[in-house]
Amino acid sequence: MSNAADGVKALVFDVFGTVVDWRSAILAEGAALARAKGLAVDWPAFIRAWESGRRAAMDKVNAGAPWINLSAIYRRLLDETLAAFGVVGLTEAEKDQFNHARCRPNVWPDSLPALKRLRARYTLATLTNNDYAWAVAMAKHASLPWDAVITSELFRRYKPAPETYRGALALLAVEPAQAMMVACHNYDLRAARSHGMRTAFIPRKEFSDDQTKDQAAEDDWDVVDDDLSGVADRLGA
Amino acid sequence: MSNAADGVKALVFDVFGTVVDWRSAILAEGAALARAKGLAVDWPAFIRAWESGRRAAMDKVNAGAPWINLSAIYRRLLDETLAAFGVVGLTEAEKDQFNHARCRPNVWPDSLPALKRLRARYTLATLTNNDYAWAVAMAKHASLPWDAVITSELFRRYKPAPETYRGALALLAVEPAQAMMVACHNYDLRAARSHGMRTAFIPRKEFSDDQTKDQAAEDDWDVVDDDLSGVADRLGA
Repeated sequence: MSNAADGVKALVFDVFGTVVDWRSAILAEGAALARAKGLAVDWPAFIRAWESGRRAAMDKVNAGAPWINLSAIYRRLLDETLAAFGVVGLTEAEKDQFNHARCRPNVWPDSLPALKRLRARYTLATLTNNDYAWAVAMAKHASLPWDAVITSELFRRYKPAPETYRGALALLAVEPAQAMMVACHNYDLRAARSHGMRTAFIPRKEFSDDQTKDQAAEDDWDVVDDDLSGVADRLGA
Repeated sequence: MSNAADGVKALVFDVFGTVVDWRSAILAEGAALARAKGLAVDWPAFIRAWESGRRAAMDKVNAGAPWINLSAIYRRLLDETLAAFGVVGLTEAEKDQFNHARCRPNVWPDSLPALKRLRARYTLATLTNNDYAWAVAMAKHASLPWDAVITSELFRRYKPAPETYRGALALLAVEPAQAMMVACHNYDLRAARSHGMRTAFIPRKEFSDDQTKDQAAEDDWDVVDDDLSGVADRLGA
């Protein structure tokens, strides 16, 4: 086993981006919806706009606003984005179904084989900003082999709020140094490290093929590799 | 599909007793401990005594006492039971290890095949009074195929407190009638039904071979069968 993993018992995964490719699934469902309803939509631009309000809505919760699940945040932003793009004629059920596409993501090719290897050696938990029910539905849809589904909803704060990392460590009953956060977002690892957790970074192009953000480690994370297969190699799995 | 399952999306399982046979594992680990340490202990009587303080400790929490995990309750009761039985000479590590035997249960022969069948059709969640980390460790030890591990620890109240059933329904984002509680304890089903959940009862002899309690349905539960295999049959899995 590499030194990076000495004493590590639990791996705590970011999911959107890190484990699954949500965007290609939304593009595909958007294209199908456009065909079915005779819509003309620039879906890459639509997705960028839809995503753009998410962080602000989560930050409001972390600043003390009442809890609202990510699915409800996305649903409200979907209404706004549809209006901004002049898309009309969708039923409420169609909008709910499209919003729910984030539970039916594609999985990066390296993810499932690597998770299966890692699961034989470590406890695998999520720590995702996704709704609890959505994280469970996504795991079932994509056969993600989690030992434990942990989501921000349990703590009513979104990552990177301290309550989420501390809460996950408490539920898993591990010391911070016994847990490694695995993410394709540097902000997530910075927060995890601030609580004493180990850190593993992989770059993903979740937002677009020419994404420049989070394509390199911004700190000396304990593990940095190209994908989850490399992380499994580095962790002796 | 039988009428009993119409509209049901999630099955919510009690675990100790219903899915696993914790007692035979403790008997075996107790016997091994006795051999290793040269102890003479009436283990069936010991286990009865160890169990006897559990409900009162959980009820104290439900009455407003500060939260304490089930593992800590059992650990304190273990000290008391060891003293009552005059067992001396165990190290703290040995006591912790023995206490932890509840995470290494045997699984009733029907449980795993039935859970695998049911999982193809339903979301399978636990609702157990076990620690979160212990429920995760037990699932990993026994390959229990849960989609979601939900435990009383998330709500800081023990079953049958309303917060636990309502909390599980909220996390799973299902209506009460879309969830069926599966348990070998009538009290658990009474509480689940009071919140509108469906109910499935099976008898188990978890406490002893001559157990008389909970050997029959005490109400007209939606499903009553001999074991989980029968429940899977009844639910069209």
